[in-house]
Amino acid sequence: MKETLVHRVREMTLKNPIMVEGLPGVGHVGKLVADHMVEELQAEKIIEIYSPHFPPQVMVKEDGTIKQVRNEIYARQGKDGEPDLLILIGDYQSATNEGHYELTSIFLDIAQSFQVQRIYALGGYGTGQFVDRPTVMGAATRAELVEEMKQQGVVFHENEPGGGIIGVSGLLLGLGALRGMDAVCLMGVTSGYLVDPKAAQEVLRVLSRILGLDVGMQALEERAKEMEKIIGKLQEMERAQAPYEAGGDEDLRYIG
Amino acid sequence: MKETLVHRVREMTLKNPIMVEGLPGVGHVGKLVADHMVEELQAEKIIEIYSPHFPPQVMVKEDGTIKQVRNEIYARQGKDGEPDLLILIGDYQSATNEGHYELTSIFLDIAQSFQVQRIYALGGYGTGQFVDRPTVMGAATRAELVEEMKQQGVVFHENEPGGGIIGVSGLLLGLGALRGMDAVCLMGVTSGYLVDPKAAQEVLRVLSRILGLDVGMQALEERAKEMEKIIGKLQEMERAQAPYEAGGDEDLRYIG
Amino acid sequence: MKETLVHRVREMTLKNPIMVEGLPGVGHVGKLVADHMVEELQAEKIIEIYSPHFPPQVMVKEDGTIKQVRNEIYARQGKDGEPDLLILIGDYQSATNEGHYELTSIFLDIAQSFQVQRIYALGGYGTGQFVDRPTVMGAATRAELVEEMKQQGVVFHENEPGGGIIGVSGLLLGLGALRGMDAVCLMGVTSGYLVDPKAAQEVLRVLSRILGLDVGMQALEERAKEMEKIIGKLQEMERAQAPYEAGGDEDLRYIG
Amino acid sequence: MKETLVHRVREMTLKNPIMVEGLPGVGHVGKLVADHMVEELQAEKIIEIYSPHFPPQVMVKEDGTIKQVRNEIYARQGKDGEPDLLILIGDYQSATNEGHYELTSIFLDIAQSFQVQRIYALGGYGTGQFVDRPTVMGAATRAELVEEMKQQGVVFHENEPGGGIIGVSGLLLGLGALRGMDAVCLMGVTSGYLVDPKAAQEVLRVLSRILGLDVGMQALEERAKEMEKIIGKLQEMERAQAPYEAGGDEDLRYIG
Repeated sequence: MKETLVHRVREMTLKNPIMVEGLPGVGHVGKLVADHMVEELQAEKIIEIYSPHFPPQVMVKEDGTIKQVRNEIYARQGKDGEPDLLILIGDYQSATNEGHYELTSIFLDIAQSFQVQRIYALGGYGTGQFVDRPTVMGAATRAELVEEMKQQGVVFHENEPGGGIIGVSGLLLGLGALRGMDAVCLMGVTSGYLVDPKAAQEVLRVLSRILGLDVGMQALEERAKEMEKIIGKLQEMERAQAPYEAGGDEDLRYIG
Repeated sequence: MKETLVHRVREMTLKNPIMVEGLPGVGHVGKLVADHMVEELQAEKIIEIYSPHFPPQVMVKEDGTIKQVRNEIYARQGKDGEPDLLILIGDYQSATNEGHYELTSIFLDIAQSFQVQRIYALGGYGTGQFVDRPTVMGAATRAELVEEMKQQGVVFHENEPGGGIIGVSGLLLGLGALRGMDAVCLMGVTSGYLVDPKAAQEVLRVLSRILGLDVGMQALEERAKEMEKIIGKLQEMERAQAPYEAGGDEDLRYIG
Repeated sequence: MKETLVHRVREMTLKNPIMVEGLPGVGHVGKLVADHMVEELQAEKIIEIYSPHFPPQVMVKEDGTIKQVRNEIYARQGKDGEPDLLILIGDYQSATNEGHYELTSIFLDIAQSFQVQRIYALGGYGTGQFVDRPTVMGAATRAELVEEMKQQGVVFHENEPGGGIIGVSGLLLGLGALRGMDAVCLMGVTSGYLVDPKAAQEVLRVLSRILGLDVGMQALEERAKEMEKIIGKLQEMERAQAPYEAGGDEDLRYIG
Repeated sequence: MKETLVHRVREMTLKNPIMVEGLPGVGHVGKLVADHMVEELQAEKIIEIYSPHFPPQVMVKEDGTIKQVRNEIYARQGKDGEPDLLILIGDYQSATNEGHYELTSIFLDIAQSFQVQRIYALGGYGTGQFVDRPTVMGAATRAELVEEMKQQGVVFHENEPGGGIIGVSGLLLGLGALRGMDAVCLMGVTSGYLVDPKAAQEVLRVLSRILGLDVGMQALEERAKEMEKIIGKLQEMERAQAPYEAGGDEDLRYIG
């Protein structure tokens, strides 16, 4: 496996779907919202994406079986006027710059093959400070989309985020625009530490309103708590595993 | 040599062999067990694998001749109902993420060409703490394999290892599963520092029982001591060699 | 997008043009001069260059729309005996060594396709100390060019810059010389911190004289101040965004 | 230039030449000896090697013109029974692991095209301690070569260097052996700091005796002093240039 592998696990017909992206990032806001949507809306997995740009790693599941780290696309046919959805989630983003470009291009190819109408890239915007009033900051590929988002309560500040938008969320807009596709980035303003369910709630509220979806919020806070617990445990493990990670990399020493 | 090179040094016919992997990792548990098995079982080297993903390095042997760093596959035909074996050992794992994916795919290609029945990936699971009761923790590609391993005394904890399994051991399971192959990871629980012969002994005990092999344990402790000595010496050398290693990399400065 | 993409946005006929390069670098001297020239001379954008060697990032503009990070080439037909110009500017240089080589080769291909007569690579030369008398230090592909530059007040010191010239400016000369092209590097001597308008002014003064161009200087200082403000804000943002940047890279952690 | 470029600048016929490699490394021992041999023996440059694996950099020469960083091969026809020589020198070694493998393979291709009889890879062996008695440590591709070198006063210690041999010197032996070529590494034992003319002198003495060459030693110490001066100046420059180097890499920030 020297190349990224797109593995279609199920066929589904969708009509002008909306793509929602929620890969790991600051405050895990995007991932929290997108994982939650997959669960609440009972979306079905249609594509798995494996790549040498992801860490060389498997996750161990509750039952002792493993899962190769990957990105996944779930699909859902809308009911009663709801739009059809493609939801992109995953364990990791690319570990290399080049991988971000390659994987985003693959995501856009998939979006175009489904004639996706619009992409919503979800993320967090870390302020490094306590956030008391939850807001959602935006960016978009066209001025008309900016206006439309403002109507929906999305906040736009001049030249913010100042550092631009990094990773898949940013490239979905940047490379999407080069293909003439419509894409919007919705960033929950967050302190940026661990998992921020309040920022996620606000992003979900805005996105649900825009899409005309009714997504239950109850489970979101609980899901965030669970994520936090797993991350905490994971960090603890990682400290203990440190020599092993090194072992998987450049620090493997010759021993006879 | 821009590509990984698979060099077959000897032909051998094997019947549905079992593949055992023991490359360097935490506590050098996997490497210790696999190197020991090669010696005790008098397995014969059939394949050498060279790769630009390994460090640009040769080892100097006792007699002053050199050995290009590499991975090796040894083979052994079973006696009296013992299974045939392929044993994968080496000086290093890949130094890059992409290399882990590429090399593991090559290992799986080789396994498939020999119609390998099952893969045992050996490693250590570092707790960062002193381990008083030796145990072997497991992970596997299928639930049936998990059950089978439990019968053999292998321990499974929910969501452990929390950080997943990194490197070739992890990918043999993850990418193996994608090819429909059966693979099990056996991790000796270890403090994770230097070479842990007790964890290795426990892994070897479990693996021997599963495979119906009789592998002498006496030499294992001694081999571990020798490894520890070499590693100690090596670390000392490395401190002294530090300027040279830098010299082999980005810090080579123009000098006229 | 696994490959660098050269996107021609406008056709323009030029006669033996001069190429001026001003990508980001020490003291942002080169970028400041080249951006200024594009504005003052009302040059028109003819080419956009996108590359997986740039950071995986979009910038957010004042109106909330985005711009994929890129390099750009602007063109201008000279008036009253002025030479035709190609001006290369951009948000970033390559993030990898290999990318520097690839992108510079692409820039040289473009230069050759326009039959560029000579290349001026603009940059700063950081002394790490306060600079009281502004000077422009030079380097060139041929001894005759060195002489010509000396006539223009460009300073040459034996074996300076001692560390050579790094990045696109250096490679335009180095790889340009291999193609038999004429190229000159003009470096404004600067303390090397933030944006140095005085060094930029001196470089612009020398370059204008050489090219017989009349470029207004008034806006330069103001432009430098604005740049400094943006950089300051950006650095502040970056500190706050730090977790997100990490999020875009190797530190994205599995969370459920 | 996405690929390494081998540029032949002069044709020369050689008879079963010996290849001597002296690229930068610990104590600059190898580079000092090989540069010295090129000068003293008036060898002629026949090949230049450019590569995206070298830093993206040009050196500035005394006259203000530039030189793209590269590796070079010089040739010399022996007189009065002296062997013909190919001498490999350069500004840098590869900045990447993969580059070391690729470039060494290219060097070996060149060696084979000239039917090189034997390769001498020169380097230093850093002890991190003051060295009072100059010695030359060895390693070789075959036991017979080890014996031959012992006859010449080259020292061999069991399992030393413990960290193996890293970079081009190591790979010339490792990959050379895979091709069935004879190669010897001669390492001047050195404290490992800056430029060590005593270690170089000892290596040159041993190599001259082996090859039956008469190479004047007088200039060696002076050349070492000059190198040291240049390196000192270079380091000073590099500290001052630090922001620019960063500028050439990942720290280039968006500024408007």
